[in-house]
Amino acid sequence: MGIRTAVAGASGYAGGELLRILAGHPEFEIGALTAGSNAGTELGAHQPHLRSLAGRVLAETTPDTLAGHDVVFLALPHGRSGPLAAELGDDVLVVDCGADHRLTDPASWERFYGTPHAGSWPYGLPELPGGREALRGAKRVAVPGCYPTAVSLALFPALAAGLAEPDVVVVAASGASGAGRSLKPHLLGSEVMGSVSAYAVGGSHRHTPEMVQNLSAAAGEPVTVSFTPTLAPMSRGILATCTAKARPSVTAAALRAAYADAYAGEPFLGLLPEGRWPATAMTLGANTVLVQVALDEAAGRVVAVAAVDNLAKGTAGGAVQCANLALGLPEELGLTTIGVSP
Amino acid sequence: MGIRTAVAGASGYAGGELLRILAGHPEFEIGALTAGSNAGTELGAHQPHLRSLAGRVLAETTPDTLAGHDVVFLALPHGRSGPLAAELGDDVLVVDCGADHRLTDPASWERFYGTPHAGSWPYGLPELPGGREALRGAKRVAVPGCYPTAVSLALFPALAAGLAEPDVVVVAASGASGAGRSLKPHLLGSEVMGSVSAYAVGGSHRHTPEMVQNLSAAAGEPVTVSFTPTLAPMSRGILATCTAKARPSVTAAALRAAYADAYAGEPFLGLLPEGRWPATAMTLGANTVLVQVALDEAAGRVVAVAAVDNLAKGTAGGAVQCANLALGLPEELGLTTIGVSP
Amino acid sequence: MGIRTAVAGASGYAGGELLRILAGHPEFEIGALTAGSNAGTELGAHQPHLRSLAGRVLAETTPDTLAGHDVVFLALPHGRSGPLAAELGDDVLVVDCGADHRLTDPASWERFYGTPHAGSWPYGLPELPGGREALRGAKRVAVPGCYPTAVSLALFPALAAGLAEPDVVVVAASGASGAGRSLKPHLLGSEVMGSVSAYAVGGSHRHTPEMVQNLSAAAGEPVTVSFTPTLAPMSRGILATCTAKARPSVTAAALRAAYADAYAGEPFLGLLPEGRWPATAMTLGANTVLVQVALDEAAGRVVAVAAVDNLAKGTAGGAVQCANLALGLPEELGLTTIGVSP
Amino acid sequence: MGIRTAVAGASGYAGGELLRILAGHPEFEIGALTAGSNAGTELGAHQPHLRSLAGRVLAETTPDTLAGHDVVFLALPHGRSGPLAAELGDDVLVVDCGADHRLTDPASWERFYGTPHAGSWPYGLPELPGGREALRGAKRVAVPGCYPTAVSLALFPALAAGLAEPDVVVVAASGASGAGRSLKPHLLGSEVMGSVSAYAVGGSHRHTPEMVQNLSAAAGEPVTVSFTPTLAPMSRGILATCTAKARPSVTAAALRAAYADAYAGEPFLGLLPEGRWPATAMTLGANTVLVQVALDEAAGRVVAVAAVDNLAKGTAGGAVQCANLALGLPEELGLTTIGVSP
Repeated sequence: MGIRTAVAGASGYAGGELLRILAGHPEFEIGALTAGSNAGTELGAHQPHLRSLAGRVLAETTPDTLAGHDVVFLALPHGRSGPLAAELGDDVLVVDCGADHRLTDPASWERFYGTPHAGSWPYGLPELPGGREALRGAKRVAVPGCYPTAVSLALFPALAAGLAEPDVVVVAASGASGAGRSLKPHLLGSEVMGSVSAYAVGGSHRHTPEMVQNLSAAAGEPVTVSFTPTLAPMSRGILATCTAKARPSVTAAALRAAYADAYAGEPFLGLLPEGRWPATAMTLGANTVLVQVALDEAAGRVVAVAAVDNLAKGTAGGAVQCANLALGLPEELGLTTIGVSP
Repeated sequence: MGIRTAVAGASGYAGGELLRILAGHPEFEIGALTAGSNAGTELGAHQPHLRSLAGRVLAETTPDTLAGHDVVFLALPHGRSGPLAAELGDDVLVVDCGADHRLTDPASWERFYGTPHAGSWPYGLPELPGGREALRGAKRVAVPGCYPTAVSLALFPALAAGLAEPDVVVVAASGASGAGRSLKPHLLGSEVMGSVSAYAVGGSHRHTPEMVQNLSAAAGEPVTVSFTPTLAPMSRGILATCTAKARPSVTAAALRAAYADAYAGEPFLGLLPEGRWPATAMTLGANTVLVQVALDEAAGRVVAVAAVDNLAKGTAGGAVQCANLALGLPEELGLTTIGVSP
Repeated sequence: MGIRTAVAGASGYAGGELLRILAGHPEFEIGALTAGSNAGTELGAHQPHLRSLAGRVLAETTPDTLAGHDVVFLALPHGRSGPLAAELGDDVLVVDCGADHRLTDPASWERFYGTPHAGSWPYGLPELPGGREALRGAKRVAVPGCYPTAVSLALFPALAAGLAEPDVVVVAASGASGAGRSLKPHLLGSEVMGSVSAYAVGGSHRHTPEMVQNLSAAAGEPVTVSFTPTLAPMSRGILATCTAKARPSVTAAALRAAYADAYAGEPFLGLLPEGRWPATAMTLGANTVLVQVALDEAAGRVVAVAAVDNLAKGTAGGAVQCANLALGLPEELGLTTIGVSP
Repeated sequence: MGIRTAVAGASGYAGGELLRILAGHPEFEIGALTAGSNAGTELGAHQPHLRSLAGRVLAETTPDTLAGHDVVFLALPHGRSGPLAAELGDDVLVVDCGADHRLTDPASWERFYGTPHAGSWPYGLPELPGGREALRGAKRVAVPGCYPTAVSLALFPALAAGLAEPDVVVVAASGASGAGRSLKPHLLGSEVMGSVSAYAVGGSHRHTPEMVQNLSAAAGEPVTVSFTPTLAPMSRGILATCTAKARPSVTAAALRAAYADAYAGEPFLGLLPEGRWPATAMTLGANTVLVQVALDEAAGRVVAVAAVDNLAKGTAGGAVQCANLALGLPEELGLTTIGVSP
């Protein structure tokens, strides 16, 4: 008998990706699927690619429908997971793909979200220093945001090794699925295709404080982050270009060595061979972050570029990886590092 | 009788865009069309969209075939324009869309291109301070690179007004036409679609010294540029995100005022209303650069984002604008600021 | 003083394309711009590419706001144009981009639209036999649907010349702008990109009876049409593949001659050279239909393929072409046959 | 110890997809990887998504390098598999993803390929009537072409049940990976994006006789096929729209019942619920064909639409499915029917 698993928010993109991965996982048994306004409809109407689950009817997202499972994955709008988790019991593993419990600093939360902070949970980025330990045996996990996953893993080696100044500039391109299934004119195919656009410029994107939190922890000192997200004409993928002033006398060799060390033994972190640069398509559907790093000697900057599938390692794959760790399963179980390409 | 105009490199993307614009221009009369390996074939085989010119046979690119014109536009691989221009006569206006004569510093040229410098020509970015004057009556024009067009116009107001430090970070996304028609595996549709990728990271892109040159001139002091180009899944367009540390006590209002002043009266530079951000699709086929600027107070940085059509204002439109100026025609003649959208 | 022109539905895709064309037209002077739920907002919020009109405020679509113009273009949801036109006066030229007045047969209208028929207007496809004559001096014009434009112009020569049986199969791919700006999940960028999908299969698409009407007129006998539309991952463009059984002893040469004859002198119809096939990108932003035709001898079928920009010749360009004709202006005025490519 | 498996043509798209699937298959052990002009280079240079195999060096494609394996998958240009297979031994399972051994009629082969016929092998489409039996224990398998996979599975139920006339019209859209990694201008990203184009019109596509062969076998009488392929702006996927005259008095219910019967128990064939139509994105990376069928009563035609991933079920997934059958493994082993979406 498998591990009974519920997915709340099963009709959205994150929920669909969770189910795609869970359906191929050898230990999880898919139980309740719930939704908000789509409750009462069949999953196949929203996720036609999930053929083996197409006839499953979506229940309402309530403590009752989610009760009786060993693991509950939450893929809900922010503000929803705190009250729900409180009713699920301390013995249930709750893995929250939403933002509610990622930030440790209530003031940061309130500044960016405008609501009271729900408290922080163990943070689901095992590859960060100390990250894995915080997740073993945990009963609550806050899955990172997709941008912070890419940016934190791209920059922590340089900051942790003291090779870069704690003042970073990040420009990242994301596919349209990062905005979820929300019906807004600028997300229509006719607007997205053939166009790259900027949004939330000037430090207003809600993933910014999460990057600050992770990178400051890695650097051991406060890190400033200038973050500009852009929307690119693709369904999935994030390419994050991350730069910081190099500390004096840093060499390209020292930089590369720091990344090689930091990523050694990490199944899901790939440092590309010298001279090759990441493309998001290399990671499609895979639980991988591919990174390359360079030293721009003329500009005196470290440049690290990371590619990630925002729905896979950036959300659902990362969530399953954390669940594996929390439950004491092999961390890689049911996850692939091979993308679907071309 | 119109101004007799030749286009060298008519079977490439820049040449095609020159012809699209020239075909709608009231003063230019299209004369010789030349090509390299495509000489002897019909234009329609390479540029089927140029219906009215489809039957024109491409001549070889030689001084002879280009002789007898008032204006010659060169859209050639770098290294070709210097010797050719020398044989075209000083009374002919030569507008070079290639890189050969953009850089004033021979050492920069040699470091990035590895060949002897061919000398610099009047630089074709009229919107820069003093740029328009340098072009009136000129007989040789070096059209800027596509990335430098976007970046220089996005940043010069902040630097010229002393509002930003002379140390900038640029991350730009370009459509695939920026690489021309070269047959390389990573430019195949199956590789480009669904993917954003980085390339020429770490300061090696050849447009970097051109940005340094323009921004240093605007700032009145040497400017450092960290430039990372990325390839986005679209045919045309550049979105450049440009940031620099804000000088102490700069305000958002002062920043915005500097841009409003710098762009006032410029027909092809658009500062978007507050709260709106550029998308490349807004500029498709138009000779426009659309810009927005913000002050990120938490990160202490100025962030300017520019959208441009790399083939229009970024190459062929800019070239025609310069030709208008050099010939004493109205600067906007034959150029549109309205894009094809969606 | 120009021809005073109003556009109703200016915030939609068809309205935006009308304005893009009208802004470059030497005779039309843009007057009132109206909208439905967007009334009271600035055009620039919806059509940021229309830079020169960005500050124009959208009025409500009423007979009053549209009064006082020489020409009124209607780009409205179906069912809206009849009552509105009735109040505009018989001396005003009303060009309706909607479906209301395209069908001559009330029964067909009612079967596909479920509402009473509003009566038919002169049909705006000048290239069809007799089409031009019906439009000269007209005060009401029904602009064809985008699919019927492509299909009718691709097939009429074969049917009119008796070279094909009156039983045709059409499969057409359309870009997402064909669905307008309606907010539906399957039109989101993340769903459209990377995917081709079928819809309205089995004869239910509302453009079917319009194809039947046009092709039957061309053939001089009733024509059956099996039409399957598909949605392709592009913003604009229709590629229509149209086939019919070849009549006995038809030759490829006879077929080609029929098309060459039918298209002779037509500024907006292009028969491609033998061996070249249409691509929608060849027509982007142009008022052109590019066609190729072949005889499949093994299958005994005529195959004609047409490419058109659904918003240009397929809607707004066709509308302006008709307005030119109705007003006695040169038919090509303000229209280009050169697309924006690549 | 697993089944030793070699892949010839490992640096191409089909080879890469074979490796993606084989890497997740519980029984196959990946042995030699070979290539043509890429021999001597690392796989990671060509297939960066295949992270676990990135360091494997490509051998030359020769009988020697392929010797010593239980299974050899060939993903080679046509004309290469016959001589190679002759030297591999009769006890080795050779699965050919190329065209050489698909056609049973030498005259058809010679007409479309212009070379002598290499003889036919058991045909790898298990879902066709009798298809599975021909593959059990086979030592040679000809994997179908991608278009014939989609078209044959979409139409065989209607033809086998006598519900449609043996004269079919097929228009199919394919993603750019269907053309492989060949460096041709029309396959460049800048040309493919934003455009749908036709090619090989008029019956000249080499997959046509394979469709004729399969559909004639299903119908029990000669079937005529008019096939028009189109290139769509996506990396993967085929959407095939297939129509034929309905036989007299066929009803929609009878048609649907025929498909439900024909697909019953087929793990990889999905008949969508009524009212839903296939999209290629539903099948990305999955070994699935999704089909819908309708009766167009006005036009008197059966319309069947199929979506398939050209590289998965259309090539590599189909190949592994056949290998499973030939080796007596469970047919579904290592294959998924869940796509990567959105």
